[in-house]
Amino acid sequence: MDRLPSWREGDAKGAILAFVDEVTTSGSAGFVPPAARIAVFDNDGTLWCERPTYPQAFFLLERLHAQAAEDAELAARPVVQALLEGDLRAAMADGLEPLADVLLRTHAGLTTEEFAAAASAWFGRAVHPRFGVPFTRLVYRPMVELLDLLRAAAFRVFLVTGGGVEFVRAVSEGLYGIPPDDVVGTSVELDVERRDGHMVHVRRAALRGRPNEGEPKPANIQAHIGLRPIFAAGNSAGDREMLEYATTGDHPGLGLVIDHDDDEREYAYPGASFTDPGAEPIGETAHRLGWTTVSMRRDWSVVFDG
Amino acid sequence: MDRLPSWREGDAKGAILAFVDEVTTSGSAGFVPPAARIAVFDNDGTLWCERPTYPQAFFLLERLHAQAAEDAELAARPVVQALLEGDLRAAMADGLEPLADVLLRTHAGLTTEEFAAAASAWFGRAVHPRFGVPFTRLVYRPMVELLDLLRAAAFRVFLVTGGGVEFVRAVSEGLYGIPPDDVVGTSVELDVERRDGHMVHVRRAALRGRPNEGEPKPANIQAHIGLRPIFAAGNSAGDREMLEYATTGDHPGLGLVIDHDDDEREYAYPGASFTDPGAEPIGETAHRLGWTTVSMRRDWSVVFDG
Repeated sequence: MDRLPSWREGDAKGAILAFVDEVTTSGSAGFVPPAARIAVFDNDGTLWCERPTYPQAFFLLERLHAQAAEDAELAARPVVQALLEGDLRAAMADGLEPLADVLLRTHAGLTTEEFAAAASAWFGRAVHPRFGVPFTRLVYRPMVELLDLLRAAAFRVFLVTGGGVEFVRAVSEGLYGIPPDDVVGTSVELDVERRDGHMVHVRRAALRGRPNEGEPKPANIQAHIGLRPIFAAGNSAGDREMLEYATTGDHPGLGLVIDHDDDEREYAYPGASFTDPGAEPIGETAHRLGWTTVSMRRDWSVVFDG
Repeated sequence: MDRLPSWREGDAKGAILAFVDEVTTSGSAGFVPPAARIAVFDNDGTLWCERPTYPQAFFLLERLHAQAAEDAELAARPVVQALLEGDLRAAMADGLEPLADVLLRTHAGLTTEEFAAAASAWFGRAVHPRFGVPFTRLVYRPMVELLDLLRAAAFRVFLVTGGGVEFVRAVSEGLYGIPPDDVVGTSVELDVERRDGHMVHVRRAALRGRPNEGEPKPANIQAHIGLRPIFAAGNSAGDREMLEYATTGDHPGLGLVIDHDDDEREYAYPGASFTDPGAEPIGETAHRLGWTTVSMRRDWSVVFDG
């Protein structure tokens, strides 16, 4: 039985299967007890398509359009005008802060339950501009097979995303079989309020800690999971520290880097960091540190799960 | 078969069994789908003995003794002298901050892996001053039965403790069957460092956010788990908001309050808050809000699991 049917035979598939066999074979030098079999996956560009921009950006922009239509002062801000014209470069002209402020305000004041409903409703109606299908159908089938392979080998699998944790939680169970509590992401501050005798959490227009990219990824893995992973997969410079953490412990560790080199079936672009554009592209880091690179074009016989 | 054999027949046991039957009986008005069956438990005084003081306080004091023996400046501080004499009231004379500062410094500079080893070693050698047994044997057997009952009913069970998250994680799997990633607690800031090619997390003498007591409990539940619990158990005013959150959602919710009224087999004391001594004792809140009170003396035929 082929344990990774959508993966073509090659170095990447070979490295994954050899690693899983090594850590699960009792008596092998690299055996790892089940309790320590922790795997972490980036989401955008690692498990689903992140181009032409993040699904979450489309979600936020839809709301921003509606807000700008009702609020002339908001609509007049240069960063909002740039965003609504789809010009991300212009929107970042004054740095990330004015951009983040506008985007954080889109859903401030909603309870976490209202936010979850808004995210689910959006996933139900939104369509990818190039592929013309819901974003939830642009999950990579080979990666879903990999999640299943790891779980069958007694790994516990966590999503460690730079995206908003409550946004990704709205679909993580359905898409990946990952329940909400196994999603680690960027968070906003929550106010605890009582409304009609019900305690609710209300989203503030402020981040809780730093965005979950770069060094915060391993720090948040430790804070949330409490164990060092032995497997990590990512696709950008923002995943570098997470892969370093997983591959420099006492157990064997596998770092996997998805190389987007397939502009026919998906997109072709380098693994730069969104929040730190000057950082080394992760493909180069992978080469230097001996991580396993996955060529989307050569290693995957199928790309999308939908 | 008695599903809670160490619980005597009575209101508390009846309320627990009726609640579990209601939420798990398909077709009942209060049926809750398995994915939403989240239960949260306080630890100190709810799952294990917290008197004469928290187990973690003994752990910190052992280290403080060793540090004071080597550091005259440290030993001379009034807060340290009070602590080493076991006078918590005097140690808090200037408020919580100088106390917290000293205690946070006891393990600053250790990697998370070194800290976990130190905690495990301490649990292996430390003995409770009154009962003369390891602290790990002072877990409440009726509560372990309750954890098992809930898991058998497809609940996922989380520990939500005011204690240090890395300290409790050292024993949570062994004592309660709760893996490290299902423990939510008070955290310290971690520095990411590279030592001999290994990425490690180093503990700083600073809290990460607020102590996990009171309002931070539901906020951290939402941040970590992403779902509103339908069952919560606690024993002090620091658990009040967590129980409120669990019992004011759209699903049925059960709030359970352990009343320490058994000075023969354990201790008798009111459910006040450590960090907010002026808050209403939780026994009174429970009465007012219709939560279920557990009398240790009357409801439990056995107290300790050891």
